[in-house]
Amino acid sequence: MTVKRPAAPMRTLMGPGPLDIHPNVYRALASPVIGHLDPAYIEVLDQIRERLRMVFQTENHLTQASPGTGTSGMEMCVANMLEPGDRVLCCVHGYFGARIRQMAERQDAAVTVLESEWGMPDDPARIEAALKDGGYKVITLVHAETSTGVLQPMDDVVRLAKSYGVKILLDTVTSLGGVDVKIDEWGIDAAYSCSQKCIGSPPGLAPITFSERAVEAMKQRSHPVRAWYLDAQLLDEYWTGHKYHHTSSSTLNYGLLEALNLIEEEGLSNRIDRHLRNHRALVAGIEAMGLEMFVAPEYRLPSLNTVRVPEGIDDAKVRGYLLETFNLEIGGGLGAIAGKVWRVGLMGYASSPERILFFMSCLSHSLAAQGHATDLKSGLAAAMDTHEKNRLP
Amino acid sequence: MTVKRPAAPMRTLMGPGPLDIHPNVYRALASPVIGHLDPAYIEVLDQIRERLRMVFQTENHLTQASPGTGTSGMEMCVANMLEPGDRVLCCVHGYFGARIRQMAERQDAAVTVLESEWGMPDDPARIEAALKDGGYKVITLVHAETSTGVLQPMDDVVRLAKSYGVKILLDTVTSLGGVDVKIDEWGIDAAYSCSQKCIGSPPGLAPITFSERAVEAMKQRSHPVRAWYLDAQLLDEYWTGHKYHHTSSSTLNYGLLEALNLIEEEGLSNRIDRHLRNHRALVAGIEAMGLEMFVAPEYRLPSLNTVRVPEGIDDAKVRGYLLETFNLEIGGGLGAIAGKVWRVGLMGYASSPERILFFMSCLSHSLAAQGHATDLKSGLAAAMDTHEKNRLP
Repeated sequence: MTVKRPAAPMRTLMGPGPLDIHPNVYRALASPVIGHLDPAYIEVLDQIRERLRMVFQTENHLTQASPGTGTSGMEMCVANMLEPGDRVLCCVHGYFGARIRQMAERQDAAVTVLESEWGMPDDPARIEAALKDGGYKVITLVHAETSTGVLQPMDDVVRLAKSYGVKILLDTVTSLGGVDVKIDEWGIDAAYSCSQKCIGSPPGLAPITFSERAVEAMKQRSHPVRAWYLDAQLLDEYWTGHKYHHTSSSTLNYGLLEALNLIEEEGLSNRIDRHLRNHRALVAGIEAMGLEMFVAPEYRLPSLNTVRVPEGIDDAKVRGYLLETFNLEIGGGLGAIAGKVWRVGLMGYASSPERILFFMSCLSHSLAAQGHATDLKSGLAAAMDTHEKNRLP
Repeated sequence: MTVKRPAAPMRTLMGPGPLDIHPNVYRALASPVIGHLDPAYIEVLDQIRERLRMVFQTENHLTQASPGTGTSGMEMCVANMLEPGDRVLCCVHGYFGARIRQMAERQDAAVTVLESEWGMPDDPARIEAALKDGGYKVITLVHAETSTGVLQPMDDVVRLAKSYGVKILLDTVTSLGGVDVKIDEWGIDAAYSCSQKCIGSPPGLAPITFSERAVEAMKQRSHPVRAWYLDAQLLDEYWTGHKYHHTSSSTLNYGLLEALNLIEEEGLSNRIDRHLRNHRALVAGIEAMGLEMFVAPEYRLPSLNTVRVPEGIDDAKVRGYLLETFNLEIGGGLGAIAGKVWRVGLMGYASSPERILFFMSCLSHSLAAQGHATDLKSGLAAAMDTHEKNRLP
């Protein structure tokens, strides 16, 4: 008997992730499967740790990849940083900030929520007013809110956390590898990301890093970490002590290492410049077409671009049309802004001008199908001009 | 700049897992990465659920793959089945039973431990004596103890759990796909496995299944599940409701589906017979060589064979020699039996006669290097004769 296999479609992925990956990463995924304690594999783990320190811009010892998706990294940070009763200030201005809050509540932490408008970053003045209250152990922030496309300015919040002696737990899911994430310079205590966005490998792993003082605090906990699978110290005993904890996936980790090697070869700052350049080209094009961005210029996240759905346009219909007609995936809005924005990812290998021009052309075509005219010609010209003007050195 | 890449060695994997995978599975891992909500991917998830029901021999609705390794499946079962204060009887006769217990303690469940000798299954009489005490909500059992190579006989424990109204949480990490796992017939309420053993794909996913009454109990919980990432109901809303929860890895799930399709094509009962046949051949060979099995014949697990390390032999030296000289990985003992046994996996695609003969030859050679003579000629003849005698219909 022969079973019918599903045909995997060849999409162009321009949503919030996964994104298209470099052919070298596909090749790495096909590496022979090897054991999680094989000496050759331990070398792979060591190299991943070294490269992750490079993208996180940190010297932190406890830097590794959690054996799950970005959400596992979020839970690893939350569950290891908080104990029952710990006061935590959760800053929420999007779907993922709210998810951190939910996780913190499941740790029975004493959660205070600071809600801000979706599409805006956290306001340092409001954070300070909350911190003045005193007694907070941790503040949770989203550096790059994947649901809204907002990049949180860090200088003020970093200064506040220092002066109030509060540890920062930071979501860098959509920034790491495409936008500066300065763990040591900012004094971040716990941060997580994912493998499939600006890093450029498939989903399934979550880079994480903890400061030395965060590790010290873990060692002083009065309650064991509730998540055995995501216990940072047990994981560290595997990554650096080579003591069995879980059966690490060589498939995913060879893929991750290759993606990190590509970052090393490109140079992190070149890569960050490339993300910014393509972001500017897309924004110029979108606006010249007659469409609007959701986020104000000073808070835009280069890797994830939120475009307003024009009045009277059926969001789901547009996305369905793009997928069926052009094999092109973009993201819809989540939560409070469902149906109101499109989320257009330009990340990692897939942050490239040909994808921008392809997306604009397809979007224009599918809006026309709903009777909404755009100035595609001006849009394409503006995108290409802007790309040219932002040429890398 | 070009970075030096690590060369992935081509091993023969005969430890506790991962095992060598079928070339089709490698091909599936190279499938184009697609989005976690792509309609084409939803079909893949549906097919995985259907095939997992076939290997678990169940009609359970909540049957899926947890987004992590087998240990994530263990935690998913423990965290969703237990609430603080719930009485649970943890039966421990090996490393993995002890791990379940640790996880149950981290849920603040009221844990009673029933310890048995490593290398023996649980004794129904002792279980009954414990259950008579009353008030247990859950009993945790290890169907196939990966640390010792013991297969737990299920009839008596299943009868006891029924008569005392206790739910069974079952570890099937090393049995699913290679040994009968009769979830519905046995009345199991929660079971988990992993992708990289008898199922035959790489590590990174954990098949799980929950009975309808287990799901009902989850809905009545007074405390939310502490693990957000592994909350069975949130995961079900993704797998069957297609509501975003985590970014499911198409890479791993295409691989898993292909491995499950290979099981469907072989036929589950043929596959179970093949595992038994190769196990018998290995045991006959090992004993004819003059070596001893660790587990009594009636309790041996066909997929994972524990061989006693002969007196005076340095276990680590043998395993190092096999790896360096023959690129052959076998497992060492864990915990109480570290240094005392070798763990030899014959699982999935890699349960095959050529691996048995290769292993025996290499083992004999490396024992000779430590001055320990074995009768390899008789061993090989016995293995081949036994393989021939157990021919499949």
